Amino acid sequence: MQKFNNVGLVARVGSPLVLDSLVTVEDFLQSQSVNVFVEQPAATMLDNRGQQVCTLEEMGECCDLVIAVGGDGNILGAARALAPHGVPLLGINRGRLGFLADVSPDEIALRVGEVLAGNYKIEEHFLLEAELSVGGHLVTACALNEIMLHSASMAKMIDFDLFINDVFVYNQSSDGLIVSSPTGSTAYALSAGGPIMHPSLDAIVLVPMFPHTLNSRPLVVPGGSELRLVVSAIYGTETKVSFDSHVEYPVKAGESVVIRKKREKLKLIHPPGHSFYGVCRSKLDWASRVGD
Amino acid sequence: MQKFNNVGLVARVGSPLVLDSLVTVEDFLQSQSVNVFVEQPAATMLDNRGQQVCTLEEMGECCDLVIAVGGDGNILGAARALAPHGVPLLGINRGRLGFLADVSPDEIALRVGEVLAGNYKIEEHFLLEAELSVGGHLVTACALNEIMLHSASMAKMIDFDLFINDVFVYNQSSDGLIVSSPTGSTAYALSAGGPIMHPSLDAIVLVPMFPHTLNSRPLVVPGGSELRLVVSAIYGTETKVSFDSHVEYPVKAGESVVIRKKREKLKLIHPPGHSFYGVCRSKLDWASRVGD
Amino acid sequence: MQKFNNVGLVARVGSPLVLDSLVTVEDFLQSQSVNVFVEQPAATMLDNRGQQVCTLEEMGECCDLVIAVGGDGNILGAARALAPHGVPLLGINRGRLGFLADVSPDEIALRVGEVLAGNYKIEEHFLLEAELSVGGHLVTACALNEIMLHSASMAKMIDFDLFINDVFVYNQSSDGLIVSSPTGSTAYALSAGGPIMHPSLDAIVLVPMFPHTLNSRPLVVPGGSELRLVVSAIYGTETKVSFDSHVEYPVKAGESVVIRKKREKLKLIHPPGHSFYGVCRSKLDWASRVGD
Amino acid sequence: MQKFNNVGLVARVGSPLVLDSLVTVEDFLQSQSVNVFVEQPAATMLDNRGQQVCTLEEMGECCDLVIAVGGDGNILGAARALAPHGVPLLGINRGRLGFLADVSPDEIALRVGEVLAGNYKIEEHFLLEAELSVGGHLVTACALNEIMLHSASMAKMIDFDLFINDVFVYNQSSDGLIVSSPTGSTAYALSAGGPIMHPSLDAIVLVPMFPHTLNSRPLVVPGGSELRLVVSAIYGTETKVSFDSHVEYPVKAGESVVIRKKREKLKLIHPPGHSFYGVCRSKLDWASRVGD
Repeated sequence: MQKFNNVGLVARVGSPLVLDSLVTVEDFLQSQSVNVFVEQPAATMLDNRGQQVCTLEEMGECCDLVIAVGGDGNILGAARALAPHGVPLLGINRGRLGFLADVSPDEIALRVGEVLAGNYKIEEHFLLEAELSVGGHLVTACALNEIMLHSASMAKMIDFDLFINDVFVYNQSSDGLIVSSPTGSTAYALSAGGPIMHPSLDAIVLVPMFPHTLNSRPLVVPGGSELRLVVSAIYGTETKVSFDSHVEYPVKAGESVVIRKKREKLKLIHPPGHSFYGVCRSKLDWASRVGD
Repeated sequence: MQKFNNVGLVARVGSPLVLDSLVTVEDFLQSQSVNVFVEQPAATMLDNRGQQVCTLEEMGECCDLVIAVGGDGNILGAARALAPHGVPLLGINRGRLGFLADVSPDEIALRVGEVLAGNYKIEEHFLLEAELSVGGHLVTACALNEIMLHSASMAKMIDFDLFINDVFVYNQSSDGLIVSSPTGSTAYALSAGGPIMHPSLDAIVLVPMFPHTLNSRPLVVPGGSELRLVVSAIYGTETKVSFDSHVEYPVKAGESVVIRKKREKLKLIHPPGHSFYGVCRSKLDWASRVGD
Repeated sequence: MQKFNNVGLVARVGSPLVLDSLVTVEDFLQSQSVNVFVEQPAATMLDNRGQQVCTLEEMGECCDLVIAVGGDGNILGAARALAPHGVPLLGINRGRLGFLADVSPDEIALRVGEVLAGNYKIEEHFLLEAELSVGGHLVTACALNEIMLHSASMAKMIDFDLFINDVFVYNQSSDGLIVSSPTGSTAYALSAGGPIMHPSLDAIVLVPMFPHTLNSRPLVVPGGSELRLVVSAIYGTETKVSFDSHVEYPVKAGESVVIRKKREKLKLIHPPGHSFYGVCRSKLDWASRVGD
Repeated sequence: MQKFNNVGLVARVGSPLVLDSLVTVEDFLQSQSVNVFVEQPAATMLDNRGQQVCTLEEMGECCDLVIAVGGDGNILGAARALAPHGVPLLGINRGRLGFLADVSPDEIALRVGEVLAGNYKIEEHFLLEAELSVGGHLVTACALNEIMLHSASMAKMIDFDLFINDVFVYNQSSDGLIVSSPTGSTAYALSAGGPIMHPSLDAIVLVPMFPHTLNSRPLVVPGGSELRLVVSAIYGTETKVSFDSHVEYPVKAGESVVIRKKREKLKLIHPPGHSFYGVCRSKLDWASRVGD
């Protein structure tokens, strides 16, 4: 296993619990023989006590490991920035176990120590990217969880045609469509009735949002599929495409959004003993073994 | 493309519509330079007018193509028998388009002619197989659509533990669990709330049947997974495992059923122009293109 | 049955099909011994050829029947305006059968004739009303289908507590909550997974929108229940309450929305032979009788 | 409130926990000035130490209160037997709170004491009854939770026509149909995707089981509806009708099952402070108030 010498540190601003874990991580890292780089928001939380400060993008160049403190939401942003650079990411969760951030606050020294000692496994998560035309310019953006085509307002229907690899699939009237990676299948897509998908699957799931017809169902397609959504004008509703519910762009009637798997993957680091099914059991309150 | 010289013919007994299509296929085949073999039930329908009669298993040895007349149900049995031999299968549907049998009765000469001329594509569908102990003997059986662990009676709960690759996943109280291939995802698993899965996916979907807890969801796992279901005794309900809702065996409390992908695949033949999404649109009444 | 002497006419502007039916209705009414009143938008469509023009609210005073041309959406606005006055409403659908507008365009003379001759039935539909504080003023608004508490943006969670008759029911994180009348149960609530409810039921159904937890389910409560939704601030999302997806108001963190059945009901007129289950069968493509 | 002088005692046989609670209840009752009657199975558990033993049916005549120990399942049988006699029922749950049996084992003396002192409320639950012809004889049976028409085997489709008040509603191919009272809406119907219904609603919910078409949805109809299910023969599957998953009868092709609300209701006793929504929150793990 690769050893890590230059470690970046990012955090979600605002919560005292996050700050507490951030301090613990930084103290631990400083006690080890590694160089530590901190993103500005985290550095501010740490009172700028002399750390090397850099941007997420710079971490992609100068770090060989990035640690994110603060939950799955925090990981999404780091994932989008780091994936092109292939820098692995480790998540410290502020509270209960997350699907992406799976080091709990009370085990920071133990788990980060294991990882620095080379005792970890890497799980690759693919991202989705979309191409669309915004104001006459071609825009590309990516998401770790899901790309959504949706109405700008709740409870206003949009209408679009779906093509997969240039084959027409269906026309749909709904509030929108969630196009989710396996990683995103336990996030928003799950609330919308999608299946839970093992993160290693090479597959994309399409989950309709409040579809107008009763025969719409989640559809799982091969990871190599190219999806094209062509927005129609019949309801006159403002349509948007959004990425991890974070960045969003408008889409005009007649325009297309092309969605496919991104070439570079997020390398997510898990301490030893990690199991996707174990995290499901914990996060989704699945029943534990009868014999236990 | 492979040309076919020895063609087997099987049919679902009983319907005049099936007989009509069966006669059409046989007449067409006799007009071509191929040897025709007919399974006994179909031969009886055809009044035994001199065809070479053989069993499905013998067709696996002597035929290089088998044509099944009569709908998806009919294909399931042929698929289970032919998969080990690698003989490709073509389905003639008695009525509307099927997911597996996709030649319509009014195009028999055209489509079978195209196939015999080498103008076709082959789609591989994996089967699932299960190992279980029945009366002290190890039994192996397979299914194209789904293997189900279920209560012997409707509305009686069973209880079991699920392990995937020897990792404990969950304990479940329900009427049963559907373990479906992508091929089966548009059959019984769909009625139970499972997602639609493209047939080329290397994935297995687990769909709970009337689960006792509200947090159970369909789960899609890699095709290479080994599933182990361990039946518990807490409800005292008689438990069974069934294959394509056709063959079934009892499972006792404490016993395990191990389910995995079968090594040999069904080779399904489609005439040119076949599209899985097109069949979905037709069978599931998905809306057609706005522009049309 | 009551005979009708003063008939109001309202229509959805814009579609040539609606105009065509509007002209047919007006011509038919003018041929009968009734006074006809037309709302301004419809009058404009009819080229203001001398009709008595008045507002929807004035129709509540001067008409004893109002006819709406143009589909269920059109009926919703008329229903909200007319319910306080108890004036019955008849809907002419521009195309296929609707749940509320159930006279088809090719039967206008026949069906409107039957109604004017006293051959009809009246179905009462209750409306929902909500009280909330907007800018320090108490606002009351009503809906025939549904009142929704929801995030101002798609895919942003809100959080609220639900009380029924002052008893705490649950805290929910979701994109919103649909509070639907039986009438609305075949509209947006159905897309969100709610049950179909017979319009005569004295019941309200609550359907969560993309709930964060997996154990949220539609909940049907007595029609006399008083619901109180108290918005919390934990996600910092802008929250709105909307009425039939038409009118909407902002709700601030800490504020409450109180929802109850409105005292006055919509009187909806159906020609003889109307059946709710028949409309379901037609609109939802339920299978017709085997024997047919 | 009525005071109770003659108290019946019934229990589910077999569990040491049930026996423990049964002894506690009987000891408490013997310490009060009431006559105690015990059903034979419970008497056997209590070692026949001199109690007056009688059948459930006799309790309907001689008791003015019956106490059932052992969970919701136990209550169902008592409810079916006692409803015609109007004798109220109190449930002692062997473990966690139930929807019907809501006295917990550690509060037996407190809660039963309150009830004997006249401090309780009575909640009426209607039962469903069905009429069918069995071997040429008309049979009537009833259920507190649900009456189901279903295939005799899992995963075998049946087919039937539904009429409500003699109006044709739909034809359905499925594994069966659950016809549930509001009381049953939190039991099997909930596992099958039905809504949660407040027990005081005068409504019946119909929940399809694994329906063949994707446009089937739960349907809530007025409590006064008469449902008629006419079984067809197209799949040749053996069809049954069952009552609370307990008693079942075969139904032949062409035969009808007529289901309606039973005239007599179960009178269920709750100690003070009982709330349906509170039980939901506990049993279904709904989130508790943010402020708590």
